[in-house]
Amino acid sequence: MHNCKHTIHRHQHHHVWDNSLEPVLSVEPGTSVNFEVFDASGGQLSAQSTAQDVARLDFERVNPVAGPVYIEGAEPGDTLEVEIEGFGQPSWGWTAIIPGFGLLSDQFTQPYLKIWDLTDKQTAVFAPDIEIPIRPFPGTIGVALPEPGQHSVVPPRKNGGNMDIRHLTRGTRLFLPVWVEGALFSVGDTHAAQGDGEVCGTAIEAGMDIQLKFKLHKGKQIQEPQFITPGPLTTGVDEKGYYVTTGYGEDLMTATRKAVSYMIEHLEQDYGLSAQEAYALSSVAVDLKISEVVDVPHYLVSAYLPLAIFK
Amino acid sequence: MHNCKHTIHRHQHHHVWDNSLEPVLSVEPGTSVNFEVFDASGGQLSAQSTAQDVARLDFERVNPVAGPVYIEGAEPGDTLEVEIEGFGQPSWGWTAIIPGFGLLSDQFTQPYLKIWDLTDKQTAVFAPDIEIPIRPFPGTIGVALPEPGQHSVVPPRKNGGNMDIRHLTRGTRLFLPVWVEGALFSVGDTHAAQGDGEVCGTAIEAGMDIQLKFKLHKGKQIQEPQFITPGPLTTGVDEKGYYVTTGYGEDLMTATRKAVSYMIEHLEQDYGLSAQEAYALSSVAVDLKISEVVDVPHYLVSAYLPLAIFK
Repeated sequence: MHNCKHTIHRHQHHHVWDNSLEPVLSVEPGTSVNFEVFDASGGQLSAQSTAQDVARLDFERVNPVAGPVYIEGAEPGDTLEVEIEGFGQPSWGWTAIIPGFGLLSDQFTQPYLKIWDLTDKQTAVFAPDIEIPIRPFPGTIGVALPEPGQHSVVPPRKNGGNMDIRHLTRGTRLFLPVWVEGALFSVGDTHAAQGDGEVCGTAIEAGMDIQLKFKLHKGKQIQEPQFITPGPLTTGVDEKGYYVTTGYGEDLMTATRKAVSYMIEHLEQDYGLSAQEAYALSSVAVDLKISEVVDVPHYLVSAYLPLAIFK
Repeated sequence: MHNCKHTIHRHQHHHVWDNSLEPVLSVEPGTSVNFEVFDASGGQLSAQSTAQDVARLDFERVNPVAGPVYIEGAEPGDTLEVEIEGFGQPSWGWTAIIPGFGLLSDQFTQPYLKIWDLTDKQTAVFAPDIEIPIRPFPGTIGVALPEPGQHSVVPPRKNGGNMDIRHLTRGTRLFLPVWVEGALFSVGDTHAAQGDGEVCGTAIEAGMDIQLKFKLHKGKQIQEPQFITPGPLTTGVDEKGYYVTTGYGEDLMTATRKAVSYMIEHLEQDYGLSAQEAYALSSVAVDLKISEVVDVPHYLVSAYLPLAIFK
């Protein structure tokens, strides 16, 4: 990290959105800040952890966010621009199936944990012949809500939060509506890679530094987060094409669950993965697209597996 | 079209899935067939049509599919592979807002029609400074259903059908489950371009020839269509990045409708389009991704506008 006057340290974090929290820093627009971000377990998992440790996670301590940072001059009705300037280098990461959580939690009831070695910096190795390109982004990024009290950090809302949008990569400019004076910005839940959808509920979870620069658009109102992300979205995995499963349904959730189930079956049958491995691999590498949302009464969702991850 | 022994002519079409229809052709696996495909209006619209003609469309005649073709040896429990070998060149196309149809039909109640000149072959011009790359694919492609009787061609089902998957481009190998003897394959609703989602309900609709090659996988069972599509998915629109709107919701449909509504507002405010133009442009150029489908109780859908379409 460079050209950064301010650092939010690892201990300066919180576990709920609450607009009564004291800011840990106050900055003028135009300032870059470095955030030391915990992994989503809040330090409960280590590179030596096992699936049993997943079953013992304390949910009061998950998904800590670093902050809040007070942006000087920010008022309700403004838009806060957050430029993602860069990421530090994590040495390891984890992907878990957490009982009770995830798209197919009714079918996957047992804990699972994959520990990733990220020292290569370019790719994360799932198996000797399966490699995922590292594409870091913050899973959770947002500002305080106008409603008083404590609000869980798990769901995203009009303040951003746990959006898990994998394209918030370096160079992205994120626009967040300001709901309270000073905005009270926080960030956490950094991911080394993820597919659109994050189907098992976790990405390649990895604590890392993230450097952000703030800008204020006075009087520009948006209702929910928007962003501009540069360049190709799928560089490095696009070249060999995709294997795609589809699911139709009278609602998008049914369609999504079917498409992902078929992808898991495909990964089991054609690549010899276990169902848990296939589900976790889908979460970090498979992209969900809404193919059509108009041909009533059936909508269609497709799950895209990039073939370039297979060596 | 080349190396093609068989042609399904324009008059050889049907408007419902019905496994009692007589095949118009019987072919062995390994055969390439050229299909002359009507546009989705079934010839009711022309390059001189206006929005008033959209309001007068006869829905009994929309979405004709060419076929059915009997695949020799195909039986229930097999998988039919359809390789998309190539497309003819349409000279014009249309995009409509049809009252009562589309993701935001409650808000867009008036007919709208855009006629596209497609003679350039590379791009379709929406406005002097907005150009959409031409990426043809069949909107409707499938086989007969096992259930007797007539089934509307509008919704996709386990037989494929009106899936509107924009990545069924040249070189794609589509796998369809076979439900009846001979499969009874048909194709229609060719599109010159579309975004993932087809939000207003129509793409760049354009009748054109399509050449397909059939292959049979005996005894390979799948439950719904799957496919392998080659190479980068968004060549030619990826290079300048994306403007993205997001919507969260307790269900994916709410999230989708919000993300698309915000995109329409963005196109109106930043590019001076009318709401109808913005909705139609979103349908042909904006991609819907499911960003996360796990952070209960809120899911997040994002709408990606490629900036390369603006000159």
